[in-house]
Amino acid sequence: MVDAGEVSLVTPVREVFSETLTLASGQTLAGFELITETYGQLNTQRSNAILICHALSGNHHAAGRYDLSDPKPGWWDLHVGPGKAIDTTRFFVVSLNNIGGCDGSSGPNTLNPETSQPWGPAFPQVSVSDWVTTQAMLADRLGIDSWAAVVGGSLGGMQALYWAVHYPERVRNCVALAAAPKLTAQNIAFNEIARQAILSDPDWLAGHYQREAMTPTRGLSLARMVGHLTYMSADGMSDRFGRDTREATPDAINPGEMVFQVESYLRYQGKQFSTRFDANTYLLMTRALDRFDIASDFGDSLNDAMASTTARMLIIAFSSDWRFSPARSRELVDALLASGRPVSYAEVETAAGHDAFLLDEPHYTDLFSAWMQQVVI
Amino acid sequence: MVDAGEVSLVTPVREVFSETLTLASGQTLAGFELITETYGQLNTQRSNAILICHALSGNHHAAGRYDLSDPKPGWWDLHVGPGKAIDTTRFFVVSLNNIGGCDGSSGPNTLNPETSQPWGPAFPQVSVSDWVTTQAMLADRLGIDSWAAVVGGSLGGMQALYWAVHYPERVRNCVALAAAPKLTAQNIAFNEIARQAILSDPDWLAGHYQREAMTPTRGLSLARMVGHLTYMSADGMSDRFGRDTREATPDAINPGEMVFQVESYLRYQGKQFSTRFDANTYLLMTRALDRFDIASDFGDSLNDAMASTTARMLIIAFSSDWRFSPARSRELVDALLASGRPVSYAEVETAAGHDAFLLDEPHYTDLFSAWMQQVVI
Repeated sequence: MVDAGEVSLVTPVREVFSETLTLASGQTLAGFELITETYGQLNTQRSNAILICHALSGNHHAAGRYDLSDPKPGWWDLHVGPGKAIDTTRFFVVSLNNIGGCDGSSGPNTLNPETSQPWGPAFPQVSVSDWVTTQAMLADRLGIDSWAAVVGGSLGGMQALYWAVHYPERVRNCVALAAAPKLTAQNIAFNEIARQAILSDPDWLAGHYQREAMTPTRGLSLARMVGHLTYMSADGMSDRFGRDTREATPDAINPGEMVFQVESYLRYQGKQFSTRFDANTYLLMTRALDRFDIASDFGDSLNDAMASTTARMLIIAFSSDWRFSPARSRELVDALLASGRPVSYAEVETAAGHDAFLLDEPHYTDLFSAWMQQVVI
Repeated sequence: MVDAGEVSLVTPVREVFSETLTLASGQTLAGFELITETYGQLNTQRSNAILICHALSGNHHAAGRYDLSDPKPGWWDLHVGPGKAIDTTRFFVVSLNNIGGCDGSSGPNTLNPETSQPWGPAFPQVSVSDWVTTQAMLADRLGIDSWAAVVGGSLGGMQALYWAVHYPERVRNCVALAAAPKLTAQNIAFNEIARQAILSDPDWLAGHYQREAMTPTRGLSLARMVGHLTYMSADGMSDRFGRDTREATPDAINPGEMVFQVESYLRYQGKQFSTRFDANTYLLMTRALDRFDIASDFGDSLNDAMASTTARMLIIAFSSDWRFSPARSRELVDALLASGRPVSYAEVETAAGHDAFLLDEPHYTDLFSAWMQQVVI
């Protein structure tokens, strides 16, 4: 039996697209594949479909388990399932791994059909607009003319915004959590340090590590440490780790030495990430993030961009999120209001930082659920 | 001719101490050397001496030039010189490179007298208390019973605080700029990422890179990028770099590609630093910073620690400093007030972040100067 509130056992589905895809960069892919999951049932009017867009390190496995023995469910299981904010007894939920990803969709660690070798660093740079284009092709295939809602946090929220702006007729509701209209110089700088950590790893091999059966573990691990640190708040870290110390693990430089808890926590997070994520994908995803600007097709006018939406909008920011602070969400809200668009905005008080959108913060969960219950299907 | 407001040409002086120094860790140094500079004249009462304590990457060369052709003066020349906040026409200013440093004082890149080899990673871990101990020995040698003022920013401010707390009879005035009573978990985490960047560099060679005529350039460069980013504020970076782009330099992965200005700025800063700083010193300095806690000898009571000071105190914080935020300075101020100690506190409005203490921010310069003019000699 699956836990109460958890979707039934899940099986990913591979969708193969054989048509040539022209990317925003002008480069082309001669076909591509998307790995997807769905939860719940599409109703006969095909009006209850929800699209979940994943963030930097996410994938298609948003909810449920593949096997009862799986230690953990999907990454957003707290908010996707029977009776949850994204209620699978009511909605048909579609989740996918974006192209350029590393969990099954066409990306650096899949085979380039022209060479039958892994793409590696030759996989073209992708953008938020490319992801939305491929998501729209997936919607066409599933017979979904319009989404009841497109939902995402962080980079996922940017995809949701892009949908609402560029496909207003296909998005009836839009939820952007912990998002921003574009990155700041500081945001870009953090991503650049993460990229340089990967590029500085001698096992990076100009991106051809897979061909040589290597992994730039140290670089990826450092990149994740930098990222992970920015997803937490200073207060949240003080509450959780303070200045507590522990003995260094046997693999540390000075085993047995007293080190701060937060040090070994971050090292562990980095190491774990480096075993599951692909370095080329990390570069592609952070570049897509850096280059995203929802106003760029509107003469840099955020008001004009937001004026082109027709969806009912929910914007949620988290008080201690300093990666995409509430001020960035308020830029979106102000532009929507200036255009007379229907928007709900909440700033959730929490010490959980940017990561809060993944967690079960009481006020967040309640208001996200209440708002989703008002989604007309 | 030196510029107006600049001290005359400077010559560093080496001070050799042959007595055995027992460090806070319990380890010993069989003698040590300090490289020092002084500006101005010690008065006949020996009452006008100011000690400058340097921060993480600083050194003894705080002001002036060694040669008229030097492109830049010392690191704090904006605030040390004739007519400046630390007025060399009035004060006798002492500046030194702390032990464990890499600019001439005993440290990882100097010779271990017992082996006649560079110390490298065998140089013992030093602490703020060790630095103050050696600074006190230097004061003894110079015949300075009490400092007119001990002054420092960031890690230098922590040394100034340590002086005021542990040698109250020897410090008549104390200035702690952009400092904190101890580091937060987030502060430690940033330092740990910087350390891991160094340790992950294959040219690190377990710290024996110098013996092999190598330098862990990539790791040091990444470490500096992380540090430098935390010294700037998000707003300051937006003002300075925004989302401006430029062509990637010929040494980039994709030369000619458009990259964000902030990326190439940070890479340049990292690279420059890696040519002048020592990786073993970086580890020692960040560890000293992490472990510093001004209240640790007072049963963790900051009030009790501050109650043991007798100096007139000046605490300055900078509004956009998120590394050591104004809230951390106010902890010091509150503890001083609770003990009835004489303290002046200013929170300077600036977008320059933590680095502001090094800069000529109008209100900062004015109030620092005015306060220093009240120092009785």
